Amino acid sequence: MTTPLRIGIAGLGTVGGGVVKIIQKHGKLLAQRGGAGFEITAVSARSRNKNRDFDVSAYAWEDDPVAMSRRDDVDVVIEAMGGEDGPAKAAVETALAAGKHVVTANKAMLAHHGQAMVELAEANSACLRYEAAVAGGIPCVKALGEGLAANGMTRVMGVLNGTCNYILTTMEKTGADYADVLHDAQQLGYAEADPSFDVGGIDAAHKLALMASLAFGTKVDFEGVKTEGIDRVSLEDITHAADMGYRVKLLGVARMHDHGLEQRMQPCLVPVSSSIGVLDGVTNMVVCEGDFVGQTVFTGPGAGEGPTASAIVADLVDIARGVRTPAFGVPAKDLVAANRATSLTPTAYYLRLALKDQPGVLAQVTDALGKSGVSIEQMHQNANGGPGATVLIVTHETTRDALDEALTAFEASENCLAPPVSLRIETV
Amino acid sequence: MTTPLRIGIAGLGTVGGGVVKIIQKHGKLLAQRGGAGFEITAVSARSRNKNRDFDVSAYAWEDDPVAMSRRDDVDVVIEAMGGEDGPAKAAVETALAAGKHVVTANKAMLAHHGQAMVELAEANSACLRYEAAVAGGIPCVKALGEGLAANGMTRVMGVLNGTCNYILTTMEKTGADYADVLHDAQQLGYAEADPSFDVGGIDAAHKLALMASLAFGTKVDFEGVKTEGIDRVSLEDITHAADMGYRVKLLGVARMHDHGLEQRMQPCLVPVSSSIGVLDGVTNMVVCEGDFVGQTVFTGPGAGEGPTASAIVADLVDIARGVRTPAFGVPAKDLVAANRATSLTPTAYYLRLALKDQPGVLAQVTDALGKSGVSIEQMHQNANGGPGATVLIVTHETTRDALDEALTAFEASENCLAPPVSLRIETV
Repeated sequence: MTTPLRIGIAGLGTVGGGVVKIIQKHGKLLAQRGGAGFEITAVSARSRNKNRDFDVSAYAWEDDPVAMSRRDDVDVVIEAMGGEDGPAKAAVETALAAGKHVVTANKAMLAHHGQAMVELAEANSACLRYEAAVAGGIPCVKALGEGLAANGMTRVMGVLNGTCNYILTTMEKTGADYADVLHDAQQLGYAEADPSFDVGGIDAAHKLALMASLAFGTKVDFEGVKTEGIDRVSLEDITHAADMGYRVKLLGVARMHDHGLEQRMQPCLVPVSSSIGVLDGVTNMVVCEGDFVGQTVFTGPGAGEGPTASAIVADLVDIARGVRTPAFGVPAKDLVAANRATSLTPTAYYLRLALKDQPGVLAQVTDALGKSGVSIEQMHQNANGGPGATVLIVTHETTRDALDEALTAFEASENCLAPPVSLRIETV
Repeated sequence: MTTPLRIGIAGLGTVGGGVVKIIQKHGKLLAQRGGAGFEITAVSARSRNKNRDFDVSAYAWEDDPVAMSRRDDVDVVIEAMGGEDGPAKAAVETALAAGKHVVTANKAMLAHHGQAMVELAEANSACLRYEAAVAGGIPCVKALGEGLAANGMTRVMGVLNGTCNYILTTMEKTGADYADVLHDAQQLGYAEADPSFDVGGIDAAHKLALMASLAFGTKVDFEGVKTEGIDRVSLEDITHAADMGYRVKLLGVARMHDHGLEQRMQPCLVPVSSSIGVLDGVTNMVVCEGDFVGQTVFTGPGAGEGPTASAIVADLVDIARGVRTPAFGVPAKDLVAANRATSLTPTAYYLRLALKDQPGVLAQVTDALGKSGVSIEQMHQNANGGPGATVLIVTHETTRDALDEALTAFEASENCLAPPVSLRIETV
C-alpha cells in the first residue's frame, strides 16, 4: 500500500455530499481497488453550519475553495460547486497550476474552458478528469476515451438531459401540455426553478460538446453546437409522431464529415422501437458508433447524488492507480480546431403544416415539395375544426436545403396559416 | 513519442486478422491516443500459406506461438487462438513469465486458469487484459473494473451469447422449432458446427464467471456457475411466455449474498418491455447494479471481427498509456474464494404442467401449490387436443424450496403426464 491519496472537496451539495458518503462507506474497498487509501483532508462550501446528512467535522474547513486548492495536504481537488466561471474555475485553475489533479462534474465550465484547462493540466503534469460531467453514472467518458479508442468514431449521439426526456415522455403518456408537465417536474425536483438551462438544451449541449471532443480529437467547441430546446415541441407534434410510429427526443448528434464537425442538440423523431425510442423518463443514453466496433449503447442514471458521486470516485480510483489518460483522448496539442459543418447527408423529416381547408391547397403543397425534389413517404390530413386543416407529412430522405426551398415557397402562399413545423427524423 | 509498443499476434483467424487491420488502418490515431507507436513485429498461426484478406508479410513469422512469446522484439502478446489449454495457455504463460503483457479474447482459458494467470502476471509485473473475452465490443470489463469501481456491486447480469439470443428471438418471431432455427443459424454462420458450447450455456457461463470476479473481488469460479442451456426451451414455452408478457432469454446472473456468491446461467423469463426483454438477435447486453450508481446497461455487438478486435486494441492503447489496473479489479492476493450459494430471495416462476384432462385435477394443482405456500398470479388452461391439458401458471414470489416441494408432490401424482417445466422470472 502506497501513501494515501489526499482529497479536498469543493462544494458539499448533492454531488460533493455523495462523494463524502462513498469514501466513508467504501474506504477499504477503494483502497484495495485503487492501491492506495483515500483520505479526505479538507472541504470547502458556502456555508459551514448548514444541516447536512453526512459528517465533515473530521476534515479541515476552508471558506475559500481557492485556498483549499493551495493546501499542501491536498493531492486531488474535487470540484463539485458548478458554474462555468467564478470560484469553480478559480479553484480548478489554482489546483492544476500547482500540479494537483482535478476531478469535476462541471460540464458548463469544461464546455467553455476545457481546452485551456487541459493545456494547463498537461503543462503541470496534472490529471483533469470529468466522468461525472457527461451522463452522470454512465461511464461513457471512459468508454469513448478508452474502451472504444481503437476506432475511428463515426457518430456519437446522446439523450443527455433527464429533465427533457422526462417532460417529453410524460407529455406523450399523459397527454398533458408542456407547461403543465414542466410544472409537475419542478414539484418533483426533476427540473430547476429556472429550467432554461435544461429545457433550452444548453446543459445537454455542454455534454455533447465534451463527447464530440473525445470522439473526434477536436477542441471543445460548445458555441459550434446548433442548439434548440424542447420548449417549442407541442403536444400535437408528440401525438402525431406517435401515431406515425415515432417518438420525439431531445437528441444530441455529433458527426465528423470531410467538410467539418457537425454538432446538433435538437428535438428529433426516432422510431418508437429503436434503442433511443424506448428510453423513458429521466434515464440517459449514449450511443457510440465506430468503424470497427459498430454501435454500442450505454444507458443509466444521468444525474442524482449516487450516480454522479459514483463517477467522481471512479475517477479518483483511476488517479490512485496511476492512470494518466489524456483528458480528451489525445494530448492537448494534438486536438484540432474543426470547421463547423452542417450535415449534407439526406435525411427524412416530419412536417406539420397549417393550411386553409379548401380545394387545391393540398395539391399546392405536394407541388412545392415535388419541385424541390422532396418526395413524400406518409401524408395525413385532419380538419382541425376551424377554418384550416392540419397536414402531416413524413418525407423520404432529402437535404435540408431542398426542404427549406419548398417550405419557403409554401410559407409565402396565402394558404399557409402558420409557419410550418419541421423536425428531423434521425436514423438510429 | 516514446519507443513503439512491439506486438506479437498469436492466431490469425477472425480475431487476430481484425487486430492486424485496425493497427494497419489507424496507426497514426493509435499513436496519438496511446502516446506510443504500435508496431506489429511477429505473428504466429497454424498455417503460414493460408489465403488471408490482410497482409502479414512484413512481420516475422513463428510456427510456434510459444517461440513468439519468447522473442526479444515482442513487448505484448495478443492471444487470439482460443482453447482453454494447449498452445494458447502455453503462449500466455511463457509471455507473462517473461514479464511481457498479454491481451486475450480467450474466455474459456481465463474461466479455468484466470487466478493462476493473474498471479503469474503480477509476480512478473506484467499486464493481463481481456476486454474482448466478455461481450465482444462492449467495453464492460472496463466499466466493471474501472468505471463503476466506486460501488459495492449488488448484481451483474448479462445476455452474453449472441447465438442463443438469436435462436430464442427467431423462434418467437417465426414460430419455428429450436432444431430448425439452430440449423439456419449454422448456415448463416451465427452458430458453430458443434453448437454445444454456445447452446449449452458454457460459453456464456465462462463470461459470467469473469464478470462476477471483477464485480465482487472473488476468484474466478467457473465450476460454481449453475449452467443450463437453451436446448430444453420449447417453442411452446416461448409462445406461452409471450402471451403472458414475457420473453425467454439465456440470462446470466451473479449476485453476492451474505452466505456466498450466486452464479447462474439459465433460461429465464423477463418482461417483454424491460431493457433485457427488448434485446433482439445477436446483440449482447450487460447490466451492472451498484449501491451508489444504481443500474447501468451496456448493449452492443458481442462477437465478430471488428468488435472483438476493437476490444483487443483498446487494451493495447491502455498498455501503451501505462495503465496497470489489476486484471480482476483488485490485486490477485486480495481476491477471495467465495462460497457457492443459491439465492434465498423469493422470485416468481413460470410453470407449465401437463395434466390429465378430468375433473378435480386443477384443484389438486392449486392445492399442492397452496400447501407449500406458493400463490398464483396468473393461471391459464388449454386443452391440448389429446388426453391431457396444459396448465400455465405464473406464481407470485416464492422460494425455490417451496416450489420444489409443490412440484415434487404434484409430480408423484398419476394425474401428472410429464415432468413439470419451471422457469425463473428474473426481476430486471
